[in-house]
Amino acid sequence: MSQAKIPRKIQLEIIREKHHQLPLIMNESGIDCWLIFIRETEANPDPIMDLIIGGDVVWESAFIFSNTNEGFSKVAIVGNFDAPAERKKEIWDDVIAYKEGIAESLRNYLNNINPQKIALNYSEDDVVSDGLSHGMFLKVSSILKDKKERFISAAPIIQVVRGKKTKTEIKLITKACRLTEEINHTITSLLKPGMSETEIQKLYHQEMDHFGAVEAWQRVSCPAIDAGPDKEIGHVGPSPKHFTKRGHSLHNDFGIKLQGYCSDLQRMWFFGTEIPAELEHAFETVREAIIKAADFIKPGVTGFSVDKIAREFVKSRGYKEFAHALGHQVGTKAHDGGILLGPLWERYGDTPKGQVEEGNVFTLELHVTTKNYGTVSLEENIVITKAGCQFLVPPQEKFILIE
Amino acid sequence: MSQAKIPRKIQLEIIREKHHQLPLIMNESGIDCWLIFIRETEANPDPIMDLIIGGDVVWESAFIFSNTNEGFSKVAIVGNFDAPAERKKEIWDDVIAYKEGIAESLRNYLNNINPQKIALNYSEDDVVSDGLSHGMFLKVSSILKDKKERFISAAPIIQVVRGKKTKTEIKLITKACRLTEEINHTITSLLKPGMSETEIQKLYHQEMDHFGAVEAWQRVSCPAIDAGPDKEIGHVGPSPKHFTKRGHSLHNDFGIKLQGYCSDLQRMWFFGTEIPAELEHAFETVREAIIKAADFIKPGVTGFSVDKIAREFVKSRGYKEFAHALGHQVGTKAHDGGILLGPLWERYGDTPKGQVEEGNVFTLELHVTTKNYGTVSLEENIVITKAGCQFLVPPQEKFILIE
Repeated sequence: MSQAKIPRKIQLEIIREKHHQLPLIMNESGIDCWLIFIRETEANPDPIMDLIIGGDVVWESAFIFSNTNEGFSKVAIVGNFDAPAERKKEIWDDVIAYKEGIAESLRNYLNNINPQKIALNYSEDDVVSDGLSHGMFLKVSSILKDKKERFISAAPIIQVVRGKKTKTEIKLITKACRLTEEINHTITSLLKPGMSETEIQKLYHQEMDHFGAVEAWQRVSCPAIDAGPDKEIGHVGPSPKHFTKRGHSLHNDFGIKLQGYCSDLQRMWFFGTEIPAELEHAFETVREAIIKAADFIKPGVTGFSVDKIAREFVKSRGYKEFAHALGHQVGTKAHDGGILLGPLWERYGDTPKGQVEEGNVFTLELHVTTKNYGTVSLEENIVITKAGCQFLVPPQEKFILIE
Repeated sequence: MSQAKIPRKIQLEIIREKHHQLPLIMNESGIDCWLIFIRETEANPDPIMDLIIGGDVVWESAFIFSNTNEGFSKVAIVGNFDAPAERKKEIWDDVIAYKEGIAESLRNYLNNINPQKIALNYSEDDVVSDGLSHGMFLKVSSILKDKKERFISAAPIIQVVRGKKTKTEIKLITKACRLTEEINHTITSLLKPGMSETEIQKLYHQEMDHFGAVEAWQRVSCPAIDAGPDKEIGHVGPSPKHFTKRGHSLHNDFGIKLQGYCSDLQRMWFFGTEIPAELEHAFETVREAIIKAADFIKPGVTGFSVDKIAREFVKSRGYKEFAHALGHQVGTKAHDGGILLGPLWERYGDTPKGQVEEGNVFTLELHVTTKNYGTVSLEENIVITKAGCQFLVPPQEKFILIE
C-alpha cells in the first residue's frame, strides 16, 4: 500500500504546531491578517495548504488568520458542502458556511475585524508563497474593493511557516532520507557493468514500489541515472542507450516522498578499483565544497554567502562554477521554496538574500566537470541547528566501488 | 504497481492530438498568441500542463503557441537544465535554453512575432484556465511591460482544448468508469448490515490498491460512504459510528484515477427486500431527472438549460432543489473545469452560460432528501456525441439490494 501520503493524524498534528507558531510569526512580520483564498484545490492547489489547512476544498474558500487587539483568531469561510469536513478537523475557531457565493460572508468578516494589512499568497520570487492564482486575485480584489490598498504579499509569513520545520517534520524528512539510502544500498548490490540507465532506474522504481514510497519529483527523471562520461546532466530521464562500464562512474539524483515528506540526495559509484586521478580530484573537490559550506552555515547567515563558499572553492580548484544554486529547501516538496543557498542571479530573484534559520532543511549540492570522465555531482541534506547544521544521513565520503 | 499515472507514450500521443487542434481553436477564438508561463511545477503546477506540455519544469519557462501570417509555431523557452527533457519530447518546433534569466529570450521572441493578443492562463470563473499564479502574472507584466495591454484570458482556448476530449481520452475515462463499477460490484458482494462507513471505505481502498488505481479526489472522502438517514451529505469522510442497517440505504460517491484519467460515480444500495415507498419515490425522481437531462443535452445547448431540466423536475415532484450544479466535466481531474451544467448562481460565475460541445464528458448528479430515510443521490458520466450523449457505463436503474 502507498506510504506516500502523510497519515491524517500526523498531518493534523503538524498543522496544529504550525497554527501555534502563527501569532508570533505574524507579529514579527508586522502583518495582522493573512487571507488564504482558494477553490477546487484538487485541480489547482495552493502549496501552503498541506501545512495550514490539510485537505481539499471544492468551492471558493477563505481561511483567515487575524492577530488584532481582540486576540488571535482563525476562521474558515467555505461552501456548505465543504463545511462538515472543516468542522471535523477541529482546527478552526469558527467555520462559516455559505450557499450561493462567498462575497458577502467574506466582506462582512473583514469589515468586522478591519485589519491594517491583508496578506495574500503571491510572490514573484518564491514559488511556494505564490499559491494565489491571478484569476482568484482579480476576484478577491473585486470582493474587497475598498480594502485593495491593504493587500501585501504573505511571503514573509509563509517562508517562516514552511521553512522552520517542526520536530515532527524533521523526523519525517530524516525517515525519507534513510529509506533513500537503504534503497541506494540495495541497488548497489545489484549493479554491474553493462547495465543501461533505464534498466537501473527500473530497479529503483521496483524498490520504491516495494516500500510504498513515491518519487519526489517526476518519475521519468526520478531517480536521474547518468552512466559514463557522455551524459548531459540536467532534469532528463535515463537512456536505454547509455550503459555502465568498467572504468566509468555512475551518478544518480534520487529523492522519495514518504508519509508526505521528501528526500533529495545524489550519489556516485565507480566501476573498478583504480579510480583515475582526474575523477578522484573532482570527487574530492565536490565533497570538500559541501563540507566547507556545511561548516560555514548557521542561523543568521545569508543564502548567497553560503553558496559563495562552495562556488569560490570549486573555482579555486580550477573548475568552471556550477550553473545552479548550491542548495534549496526540502520538505513536503523536494524543492520546498523559501530562502535559497544560491548566487545573486536574475532567475533566483531575492531568495538568496534571506537569512538561514534554525529548523531549515537544505540540500547542499554541486557538480564539476572532468575532461575525460564526465560530471561528478553530489548532494546532501542538512538541518540547521542552533549553532550550525547536521547532516540528516552521513554524507558520501568516497566513490562506492563496484568491483 | 501504481496505474494511476498516464503512460508516457499515451500522454505524448494525447499532447500531439491537442497541439494538432490548436491552430483551429486559436483561429476560432481570435487569439494569435498563447503564452504559458510557469516555474517549479512540481510545487505549483498549471492544470493545463498535462495536456499541452507533459512533464515538470524547474526554472521559469515560457511555452508559446503563435498563429501568425508566417504560420503556426510552438516554442519552449526554458532553463538550460530543463532543455534536454523538452527536446527529447519532440513536440516543439524550437527549444530555446537560457542560463541566468528568462527575461531577455522571452522579450526577444515576442518582439519578433509581435502578436496582437497574448493569452495568459487566468480566469475568475474557470479553475483549470487559472493556472497562472499572481506572482508570475506580475513577473510577466514587468518583462513584457510594453505589451501588457495585449494580455487577455486564455480561457476560450483552454476550455476547448480541455473540454473536447480526444478519442484516446474518451477511451481512458471509459476504462476508469468500468473499473469503478467493477470495484462497486466486488464490494456489493461483501456488504452486510452492521458494517461501519469506515470499514466499507477500507474495503474500497484495498480494491483500489489491488488494481493500482488511486482516488480521484482526496482519499479521506473518496469514496464518500453514507450509511442510513442521519448523514450530512457533503465532502466529508466516513464515520466509524455510522452503520449499515436492515431497512436503510447506503450511498457512495466514488471516483478513481487510472492512467491519468478519472471517473466520478454515485451509487445506492438498500438493505432488505421491501423498499419503503418514500425511498422508492425519491430514487425514481433522481433517476428520471438524470434521464431527462441526458435526453435533452446535445451540442449547442447552454449549461444552465440542462441543469434547469433536472432542477425543475425535482421541484415538480415536491422536493427541495439540490444546492449544487447538475454536472461538471471529468477528465484528468474529477472536476475538470470549463463549462458547467449549473444554475446561474454567483459562485458559478459565467461557467453555466457556455455551450455544450461534442466530445465533452460530464457528470449528471443530483440528490433529493426524504423525511425518514435521508438522502437519495445518484451520479452518472456521459460523453456528448454529435446528436446527443452516451452514458460511459450503464446508469443505475434501481437500488442494489443486499438481502
